[in-house]
Amino acid sequence: MARFFIFGANYPQGGTVILSGEDAEHARVLRLRVGEEIVISDGAGRDFNCTVRGFTGAGVEAEVNGIARNTAEPSVAVTVVAGLPKQAERAEYTVQKCTECGATKLLFYRSHRCVADPGQRSIEKKLARWQRIAEEAAKQSGRGMVPEVAYSSDFGAALEAGRKTALPLFLYETGERAPLREVLEAEAPGAGSAAILTGPEGGFEPYEAELARRLGFRVCAMGPRILRCETAPVAALAALMYATGNLS
Amino acid sequence: MARFFIFGANYPQGGTVILSGEDAEHARVLRLRVGEEIVISDGAGRDFNCTVRGFTGAGVEAEVNGIARNTAEPSVAVTVVAGLPKQAERAEYTVQKCTECGATKLLFYRSHRCVADPGQRSIEKKLARWQRIAEEAAKQSGRGMVPEVAYSSDFGAALEAGRKTALPLFLYETGERAPLREVLEAEAPGAGSAAILTGPEGGFEPYEAELARRLGFRVCAMGPRILRCETAPVAALAALMYATGNLS
Repeated sequence: MARFFIFGANYPQGGTVILSGEDAEHARVLRLRVGEEIVISDGAGRDFNCTVRGFTGAGVEAEVNGIARNTAEPSVAVTVVAGLPKQAERAEYTVQKCTECGATKLLFYRSHRCVADPGQRSIEKKLARWQRIAEEAAKQSGRGMVPEVAYSSDFGAALEAGRKTALPLFLYETGERAPLREVLEAEAPGAGSAAILTGPEGGFEPYEAELARRLGFRVCAMGPRILRCETAPVAALAALMYATGNLS
Repeated sequence: MARFFIFGANYPQGGTVILSGEDAEHARVLRLRVGEEIVISDGAGRDFNCTVRGFTGAGVEAEVNGIARNTAEPSVAVTVVAGLPKQAERAEYTVQKCTECGATKLLFYRSHRCVADPGQRSIEKKLARWQRIAEEAAKQSGRGMVPEVAYSSDFGAALEAGRKTALPLFLYETGERAPLREVLEAEAPGAGSAAILTGPEGGFEPYEAELARRLGFRVCAMGPRILRCETAPVAALAALMYATGNLS
């Protein structure tokens, strides 16, 4: 069923909703017909189940049949903190897949081995594009919210974003590490929040891992296979969702 | 460390290896230097640890220092059986990510709701490209083998490929399903082989799911979030690797 987000929306049952602007355009692309059922999410976990009533100059008119809590949101709020990839498509892929897999927030950061170094104007464009990709993926996967996508040129800010969660995970491909499974089996059940911190193409400097460890991150291994920078967050997120009972 | 595959290779310790053709080209791209260490895999789980000795007209000359069993192969041989996506990049993505995550074989198939319908010549080109992508991903992730990528225009063949494994999983987004986690916790530990069968963009016909069920597939749910056809195999594979202790 077609989904739309109208952030902060609050419609009464029987009330009328107007999809305008990009939403109306999207409705045209989807070839919505009168009588068709759609869902409008308020972006805060509430779904308005609607029926398309007509098309006016103002946009698509829909009537609210019922209001329900969205059931697709996971029990754990996961912040994915990923080293900014050099290739744009890798970052976009990370946003799309992590949104589908249930991430609540994404933060790209720069660290010592990051090759990418976008200027201010470039990053503003990227952020707008990433946010659009997150919204599309949230619609398509039936999410009740759209993950916020952010960027920081500062590795410290990335650590801080993770440190504030109940289960900060640092995925490290070398050095002293605990098996991800051990950590998740012990700590994931019942965790209300978590962070998955992964590196850029070039990986981490040892001091970056040590910093994370001292800040309380669980430094984890994800097996002997080296995952690309855009693959590791998705694999770790799927494992975390599995371990917290959100993949069943 | 740079990795190469020379299938069926069998070099004695102290012996000399010549990387020629595409491997020599790849070595040039990687700017290999004399004295640099490389790994040459025989594609059957055996790694030849080598040192670059020189560059000749024949290619790159390397000396075998030692022979070791590759440690990156998972304990479970997973066949990923995926509905052929409409968009080429989605299929390529599936091949690359599933190879990184440890799949042993990939089979794309056509089913009732498949939109893609490649001709014979087109599929031969695709298979060659998919196999190249699998080899690149296998090198990059440190695999000891290159997953075989195959295609069948017949859904029955897809079911047969899965049915022959110890744990055939059918990922279904509607109807009667068991939670993936329940199935994996009960059956994954110790399983020597498994299959992950996922649908095309349009999903499955109910009779396709019923067919799979009757053939012994475990019809599973992967949570309330609808995953795209190229995301589901990777998420399921990560969960399966986690459940079998291959993600730690």
